[in-house]
Amino acid sequence: MQATIRFAASQGIPVVARGAGSGLSGGSSAVDGGIVLSLENMRDMTIDPLTRTAVVQPGVFNAEVKAAAAEHGLWYPPDPSSYEFCSIGGNVATNAGGLCCVKYGVTADYVLGMEVVLADGRQVQLGGTQVKDVAGLNLKQLFIGSEGTLGVITEITLRLVPAQRPATTLVATFSTLDDSINAVLAVTSSMRPSMLEFMDNYTINAVDDLTGMGLERDAAAMLVIQTDEPTEHAAHEITLIEQLCQEHNATDVFSTSDADEAEAIIAARRMAIPAVERKGTLLLEDVGVPLPRLGDLVAGVEQISQTRQVPIAVIAHAGDGNTHPLLVVDPTDEEQQQRAQLAYGDVMDLAVRLGGTITGEHGVGRLKRPWLVDSIGEDALELNHRIKKALDPDNILNPGAVYDLHR
Amino acid sequence: MQATIRFAASQGIPVVARGAGSGLSGGSSAVDGGIVLSLENMRDMTIDPLTRTAVVQPGVFNAEVKAAAAEHGLWYPPDPSSYEFCSIGGNVATNAGGLCCVKYGVTADYVLGMEVVLADGRQVQLGGTQVKDVAGLNLKQLFIGSEGTLGVITEITLRLVPAQRPATTLVATFSTLDDSINAVLAVTSSMRPSMLEFMDNYTINAVDDLTGMGLERDAAAMLVIQTDEPTEHAAHEITLIEQLCQEHNATDVFSTSDADEAEAIIAARRMAIPAVERKGTLLLEDVGVPLPRLGDLVAGVEQISQTRQVPIAVIAHAGDGNTHPLLVVDPTDEEQQQRAQLAYGDVMDLAVRLGGTITGEHGVGRLKRPWLVDSIGEDALELNHRIKKALDPDNILNPGAVYDLHR
Ligand SMILES: Cc1cc2nc3c(=O)[nH]c(=O)nc-3n(C[C@H](O)[C@H](O)[C@H](O)COP(=O)(O)OP(=O)(O)OC[C@H]3O[C@@H](n4cnc5c(N)ncnc54)[C@H](O)[C@@H]3O)c2cc1C
Ligand SMILES: Cc1cc2nc3c(=O)[nH]c(=O)nc-3n(C[C@H](O)[C@H](O)[C@H](O)COP(=O)(O)OP(=O)(O)OC[C@H]3O[C@@H](n4cnc5c(N)ncnc54)[C@H](O)[C@@H]3O)c2cc1C
Repeated sequence: MQATIRFAASQGIPVVARGAGSGLSGGSSAVDGGIVLSLENMRDMTIDPLTRTAVVQPGVFNAEVKAAAAEHGLWYPPDPSSYEFCSIGGNVATNAGGLCCVKYGVTADYVLGMEVVLADGRQVQLGGTQVKDVAGLNLKQLFIGSEGTLGVITEITLRLVPAQRPATTLVATFSTLDDSINAVLAVTSSMRPSMLEFMDNYTINAVDDLTGMGLERDAAAMLVIQTDEPTEHAAHEITLIEQLCQEHNATDVFSTSDADEAEAIIAARRMAIPAVERKGTLLLEDVGVPLPRLGDLVAGVEQISQTRQVPIAVIAHAGDGNTHPLLVVDPTDEEQQQRAQLAYGDVMDLAVRLGGTITGEHGVGRLKRPWLVDSIGEDALELNHRIKKALDPDNILNPGAVYDLHR
Repeated sequence: MQATIRFAASQGIPVVARGAGSGLSGGSSAVDGGIVLSLENMRDMTIDPLTRTAVVQPGVFNAEVKAAAAEHGLWYPPDPSSYEFCSIGGNVATNAGGLCCVKYGVTADYVLGMEVVLADGRQVQLGGTQVKDVAGLNLKQLFIGSEGTLGVITEITLRLVPAQRPATTLVATFSTLDDSINAVLAVTSSMRPSMLEFMDNYTINAVDDLTGMGLERDAAAMLVIQTDEPTEHAAHEITLIEQLCQEHNATDVFSTSDADEAEAIIAARRMAIPAVERKGTLLLEDVGVPLPRLGDLVAGVEQISQTRQVPIAVIAHAGDGNTHPLLVVDPTDEEQQQRAQLAYGDVMDLAVRLGGTITGEHGVGRLKRPWLVDSIGEDALELNHRIKKALDPDNILNPGAVYDLHR
């Protein structure tokens, strides 16, 4: 590992770190004349139940960390939908989110420390096993989400928490988008659900086509909401959620505390991307807005879809305002492909206009690089450049991802 | 604000940002020929209950944010013992911890965005109001805990959460240190208390001297533990905590869900520093270790106290391994003062040897600067320097704090 980077540094050869390759922003794709450094064989992992920590090499899959923690009655919360086929290293490098982060936070909230190999081949330990440590700048947090541009993560110390309580799951359908979004706001402003997911009509139908599970195909939107409070309190909360959905004209509400039934519902949500993918080639968006603007975002995306004549399915981690508009493109229609490129930009422009971000959890990668400046502004971008140059002066690490620096 | 920094930058004059001056590492003390930039008059604050956020200027006190949030049924968790007399700006600049962070995290976990004035006088917005945002490097996190060395924080957007549930509070006393520490480990490895504080014999007696509240003066240690789970579950947890304390030979266990009784107990904990201060001049420590080493740390500190002949009281946010050994020095005894200086270093050396940190929440400031390299290592320190130089090339901002850079 260090040898590879030292060699690359001495020769000025670019190095792209690659985890499981499930990234959606083109962050781990090879660059011309560069080395792709695969972390897939770095697979050691040890769990310490006393300190509730896991020390994990980057190639271990998210699902494997969850499983190893569970053996000790512990839980590693971050749960990107891709958890069965993405690596912990990739999760840390992108600060991956997921379904439960509306209550339990993102990957960054679980990283206590890490070992990284820097652009010059030096290996350094950042953070440790303590939750609280303010000795010097918080370099650990700087490296989380840095998408392989500041260093290659070779070991991670993760914080684990006691096993999640069994959850109660509710599905509600709505005949208008507004009703569904208002229900989201009503729920999030009065409690902390452990999941709050949104699927629009296009997605509902795509998932139903794929699974035949009998979803309400006429619904404008469907919400999947979970609470994992202790039993009595969960019953109370789920009743409240049900009421709030009814108040916002839900056409159908169903709740269950049966684990298998719940898993089927959540699997439907997790199937959303593959299901929509059956309808055409996808351009996957990841825009986020402050919660009160969620309705404006979803309505604006519908508008863009009409103007550009490109179907756009919308799924969202609605509870934290993070949406995934999926642009569905006919691979044989070149004109539509061009319109889709424009629509892809339109969606990011819209999110920025609404005070939001071009990427909530997938990262900037190569795909969204041109929009970064609009999202964070000239000055913040310039700070990014200064830090990148300070830590990787020769631009060896993942050049072309995130920032547009010339080598 | 910007004008001051622009002027200072043009003249090469150092600028030290100062919040409420409650810091314990000498981070906001004036430097020769420099400007002390007081933030105390920047006191605007608005709460948005819909997004559960607060937009706060840096001079607002922590307690005022809590109170304003409470008016909307909301809660701003971070609670340094100094919450009634420290500023939010200072909290963010030091990444302050507190009593409830064992369950609810530190200041960094509640900062969504901030506005900072950089060393060249430019003002930049970092982060926003979204929980999830991975557009570019996480500069916001880099500035949190940077102790005024990278920029002056002029506005902060804070995440608020629903009001905390009423807590149940338990006090347990132990006749040996080992028993008390083992009880801590037993509790933390099986549940998530919302507070887990430790006071040693010296502290118990100092607090009892000051308050006359009738604490068990013979006890080697006292734990204050809270749970804020929903009612039925809290009852279950408090019984479990009680059992775990009994199993570790607690000499006395008392629990209450009466808010006033609980507040009296916690006030005792919060009085610890002022109470011990009555016994002499204090040198305040802030070392942290991985939880399983907590016993070794407390025992080692006792050893240091004996060797150096300096009384050391120990209080701790035990649940996250963060301790505050308080060195009690006779201000008329110069020899003891010198021994205390050595003991102060001994304690940090011990923490580092145990795999811990020289500062869990107070920051490095000027006081702990000489020990930073031992705590984080040469390479990480060098990365700190590179980032400091990249963002403040003329070393205008808080020179002499945290790093030892020559201007
Ligand atoms: C169907 C599907 C659903 C998804 N759902 C979610 C979701 O809910 N939430 C979410 O956040 N993401 C989601 N993703 C995106 C993706 O799974 C995440 O970004 C994941 O974290 C990437 O991990 P990886 O191991 O595949 O990384 P890769 O794709 O290999 O790399 C991603 C980036 O991280 C860098 N990198 C990888 N490993 C390292 C390392 N060890 N050191 C330094 N840099 C490294 C790469 O250079 C690249 O920039 C989804 C993807 C798919 C296909
Ligand atoms: C009795 C007592 C108990 C305490 N208990 C705790 C505790 O439980 N947990 C804990 O974490 N701390 C505790 N502290 C320490 C202290 O209160 C915290 O560090 C607090 O966050 C400092 O806030 P302040 O406004 O007083 O900042 P100051 O002391 O004025 O400054 C602290 C540092 O922050 C910088 N700074 C301040 N404002 C800004 C700004 N707007 N922009 C940039 N930099 C800035 C300063 O330059 C300095 O480096 C305690 C202190 C006392 C006296």
